[in-house]
Amino acid sequence: MSTNNIIRTINSLAEMRKFSIEQKGEGRTIALVPTMGALHEGHLSLIRMAGANADVVVVSIFVNPKQFGEGEDFNKYKSDLKGDMESVGKYNVDAVFIPSAEEIFPDGFQTYVEVTGLQDNLCGDFRPGHFRGVSTVVLKLFNIVLPELAVFGEKDYQQLKIIQRMVKDLNLSVSILSSPIVREESGLALSSRNEYLSDDEKSRASSIYRALSAVKESFKSGEKDVKTLVDIGVKILLSNNINQIDYLEIRDGETLGEVNKANSGNIVAIAARIGSARLIDNIKL
Amino acid sequence: MSTNNIIRTINSLAEMRKFSIEQKGEGRTIALVPTMGALHEGHLSLIRMAGANADVVVVSIFVNPKQFGEGEDFNKYKSDLKGDMESVGKYNVDAVFIPSAEEIFPDGFQTYVEVTGLQDNLCGDFRPGHFRGVSTVVLKLFNIVLPELAVFGEKDYQQLKIIQRMVKDLNLSVSILSSPIVREESGLALSSRNEYLSDDEKSRASSIYRALSAVKESFKSGEKDVKTLVDIGVKILLSNNINQIDYLEIRDGETLGEVNKANSGNIVAIAARIGSARLIDNIKL
Repeated sequence: MSTNNIIRTINSLAEMRKFSIEQKGEGRTIALVPTMGALHEGHLSLIRMAGANADVVVVSIFVNPKQFGEGEDFNKYKSDLKGDMESVGKYNVDAVFIPSAEEIFPDGFQTYVEVTGLQDNLCGDFRPGHFRGVSTVVLKLFNIVLPELAVFGEKDYQQLKIIQRMVKDLNLSVSILSSPIVREESGLALSSRNEYLSDDEKSRASSIYRALSAVKESFKSGEKDVKTLVDIGVKILLSNNINQIDYLEIRDGETLGEVNKANSGNIVAIAARIGSARLIDNIKL
Repeated sequence: MSTNNIIRTINSLAEMRKFSIEQKGEGRTIALVPTMGALHEGHLSLIRMAGANADVVVVSIFVNPKQFGEGEDFNKYKSDLKGDMESVGKYNVDAVFIPSAEEIFPDGFQTYVEVTGLQDNLCGDFRPGHFRGVSTVVLKLFNIVLPELAVFGEKDYQQLKIIQRMVKDLNLSVSILSSPIVREESGLALSSRNEYLSDDEKSRASSIYRALSAVKESFKSGEKDVKTLVDIGVKILLSNNINQIDYLEIRDGETLGEVNKANSGNIVAIAARIGSARLIDNIKL
């Protein structure tokens, strides 16, 4: 479809599935990009990847209550439907699926998907129930939209690994594509939660990527000791007055398990709180 | 297909999915009857129902290790593949799917479906993890076989309610049909586990149905007090020397929640141990 096209907005689950079944009936493949809205350039890179790999692109916008814990930012999570529709209007998006929480999680809802192991470390330690909420809603979206493929960002690395594992373990017929992290010039990874930062906080937040890069550089220079590498990163965060560090860890790139020595393919992952934002970022060794 | 036909046996997941996709491509609907083998007349009634409601019938035979707890009868669970193939040969079964445990649950498998609430009472109290194993393998079978409908027996009433709930909550495109309990002349519900019973135990086991029937008769005669009704059933079990009663409960027929007064549509459910068998049965008020 052309740019600035009128995009179909779908709210009901039945209409969404009908749309997908029609598209498939005409031999078209469907790519789903699941989002919580507040779309930024990172999301748009997912949408471009979706468009390059399927005939039909569906973007879902659903701020999933099940993946927010008590005291988290569910109620202030930024919503900008007008801006979102303008953003997707510039791309080959065929439908925007915006379901209601009442239809996704009706009274009596009680079924959850748990990717045990992978969900129980890193962010899982700090956000109990978060990944259960993610896996569950993603599986539901797959079952409603019936996509051949779905695109996820590598910024949410643990989420990506959990979704890939879920797809494999549950024998889902969906290919998962992942798209590299999009960064500001400062190195700060794009995130809807960057909106919570003041200018000063944003400037300090860019040290997260500097810390990741410094760890990677030291690794490339021959340092393999995990504690030494982690200390290099932590030092950079602390010197930028980032001291609410949930974790800075070097983990196996697939299982997210702890490693004795740093190795190529390991992931360096950071979660830290700056002001009222909890930011995550990662880099592959 | 005609009776006593040669039935296709499928072992690999890829071949199973390929078979299903071919059938669907030719416009045929698929019914799945998930079993653990050791087929008896109860299973055959499910197969007949499947054949009456879809073009293609797939029977899966998989003794699911994830639904047996420690100390349960996984290792002695009866397997009779030759007998099973003879049984299904008499019906319109198009394929028997017999996957290996290694392919269903490969190394690193870690994703589970939990139907919270419904799975946490009655048999769930006595068999921790059992229903998690059931829901997970059924969802996997759905995703591999891609059936339009699946048939479950009403004897496993809690399982039926859990599967129905899972299908609804996860937006699965599978219709769930249920088939009434098949009984011996004595009233004993058919079960693969009846094989564990001696003649004397079998005769005592038939009092389970007499207990259920007595509860129902009293209800129909006007008795609505749950405790009184339960006592009527328990008395019959005890007088037949069935004293390892896991439960005899009257519950809401959908939520399986406790009820204050017995009502039409409630379910009376029994689980009891006789010899080395744990038997379940139920009746609707």
